[in-house]
Amino acid sequence: MQTHPPLDLSIGQDLVETVLNRFYERAKARAAKLGPGYLSLWQALENSTAGGKRVRPRILLTAYLNLGGTDTAAAARVGAAFELLHTALIVHDDVIDLDFTRRGLENVSGVYRGLATAAGVEAGAARHRGLSAGVIAGDLALTGAFRLLGSAEVDTDVRERLAEILDDAVFASAGGELIDVDLSFHPDAPPIAEILHMERLKTAVYSFEAPLQAGAVLAGASNDVVTTLGLFGRDIGIAYQVVDDLLGVFGTESTTGKSSFSDLREGKRTVLVSYVARKPEWAELSGLIGNSELTARDAARARELLVSSGARDHAQQLVREYADRARQHLDCPAVTPGLRAALSTVVDDAVNRGR
Amino acid sequence: MQTHPPLDLSIGQDLVETVLNRFYERAKARAAKLGPGYLSLWQALENSTAGGKRVRPRILLTAYLNLGGTDTAAAARVGAAFELLHTALIVHDDVIDLDFTRRGLENVSGVYRGLATAAGVEAGAARHRGLSAGVIAGDLALTGAFRLLGSAEVDTDVRERLAEILDDAVFASAGGELIDVDLSFHPDAPPIAEILHMERLKTAVYSFEAPLQAGAVLAGASNDVVTTLGLFGRDIGIAYQVVDDLLGVFGTESTTGKSSFSDLREGKRTVLVSYVARKPEWAELSGLIGNSELTARDAARARELLVSSGARDHAQQLVREYADRARQHLDCPAVTPGLRAALSTVVDDAVNRGR
Repeated sequence: MQTHPPLDLSIGQDLVETVLNRFYERAKARAAKLGPGYLSLWQALENSTAGGKRVRPRILLTAYLNLGGTDTAAAARVGAAFELLHTALIVHDDVIDLDFTRRGLENVSGVYRGLATAAGVEAGAARHRGLSAGVIAGDLALTGAFRLLGSAEVDTDVRERLAEILDDAVFASAGGELIDVDLSFHPDAPPIAEILHMERLKTAVYSFEAPLQAGAVLAGASNDVVTTLGLFGRDIGIAYQVVDDLLGVFGTESTTGKSSFSDLREGKRTVLVSYVARKPEWAELSGLIGNSELTARDAARARELLVSSGARDHAQQLVREYADRARQHLDCPAVTPGLRAALSTVVDDAVNRGR
Repeated sequence: MQTHPPLDLSIGQDLVETVLNRFYERAKARAAKLGPGYLSLWQALENSTAGGKRVRPRILLTAYLNLGGTDTAAAARVGAAFELLHTALIVHDDVIDLDFTRRGLENVSGVYRGLATAAGVEAGAARHRGLSAGVIAGDLALTGAFRLLGSAEVDTDVRERLAEILDDAVFASAGGELIDVDLSFHPDAPPIAEILHMERLKTAVYSFEAPLQAGAVLAGASNDVVTTLGLFGRDIGIAYQVVDDLLGVFGTESTTGKSSFSDLREGKRTVLVSYVARKPEWAELSGLIGNSELTARDAARARELLVSSGARDHAQQLVREYADRARQHLDCPAVTPGLRAALSTVVDDAVNRGR
């Protein structure tokens, strides 16, 4: 069997960084003219984009280059647009979740809450000021995503299809965010299918389906390939999210970057929680999670229950199922062996991260 | 002197409504497939766009048609994009101001707070749910603005200039919103120049400068005309905002659609308040405004102080000055007599509204 050495993505990834750096440099220069406070907001927003794993540009470049795309500059701009979309969505998601930190660092709202507190503003008002800055900053990142997409030098019909893909991604993500908000108000844990639907809309579409399809469209791939990559992205995106649910409870802080208590303390509606909600262990588990004072001992007991009820096994089984389905989409003539090999690596990375 | 009968904007304005209706019909059909809750959000968002005065599309069409533009369909799409931008900004502005009504009706956040309250959610959580829905809805309107702009069938270079104008408008508006939030935390009323700077950025740019320039670019006007319309838009936009400050205190609810108490109760930083802050009347006025329990008697006294201190006269003088400066920009060869006549009407309408 022929082997397919992976294409080198590093030039494209470096270009993504260059595009993002230039975007922020230009914005900060303009913001400084309007006032020092505005420059600070842009700086805080830039920090939200910095240090990410660039999952979406990488996936886009993987599809693009393996489909024979050669205009790496254009692909990098579109990849950077997806990275800014990601920034916009996490900044607004943090506002909605009333989170003031992300990965252990203050986010935009945290920085602004801190500034207000330092200026003597009382706690509630300082919090509100932080959230207001988050709303504004997310709008700027979202606008930046459309701007970067529009500035890629591509044919009109390609540009229109890319705009539609980005639009669809925001549409799905907003719908998923809304369902997530709705679910958090439900006293009962929803069925697993509803959790998967929400996770797919909220994150999988803009993180996997859309960047893969954008890369394919940009490379001039056939509709068959674009459709196949959408189906592949959907399944691997769902697998990725279920892994997220597992890591949120069983992962270590050093690999996930967030406390392994936070999902439990928040009582986050995950595939794990939904599974237990239909089991006898729910009586005990529901009394432990969703409590901001949850102790290390409580957390250890909650993990035990998630294992003994079979929730962890079930989630791991779901990951394998969706990963297999994703791989099966690649078994079609429209997908070249090189692309298949590259996307298999995407599957492996998604499934094995945090291990 | 030759007279210039005004061009009929009605066909263009009807087309703007058609574009907006189709945009929402399509979005609602897509949203319904993802869940009934998502359809409700789109319905609430559509209600935020409904019933507006379409100030921005009207201004854009005025510039476009008087500069000889003939593709009314394209101008209507771009006009509708500015209307959606307006919707996005007011929905997020309401989130930031913790407002749950606009013009006496529940806004997106108000509808969602109401739904949560009806479902038995306690007040604080219901409020938060309302605000979360507002964040999501504003993102959808902002995305819609870029989508409509991108879907206008225009040449690539025109499309790029339009995208830049829309981007600049969001950039300015976000900066103005941030300064507005900052000012609200300052114990002292800022100098009038700062208020004008904030009002220009927050509202005048996206409401006047940008739609006028977009109309001119779309009509293929010279750079001279585009620049002149920007300067005109800046000055008339500032005049419009100072009129807003006056109407907020001295207007009647029937003409402004909002309570003539709300600016006083909020202690809103306006040109009027900044003027009095440097006068002896401030000692008394500062004790009356910014109090949510302000009575009709207090309001009457506050108005007396705004008159006796000279604040009202000063604001009216500012309106005249900026309106005159706006008119002077039109006295240049690049502006045709027809366009000059049409924009003079824009000045008159801005200055005389609410009378």
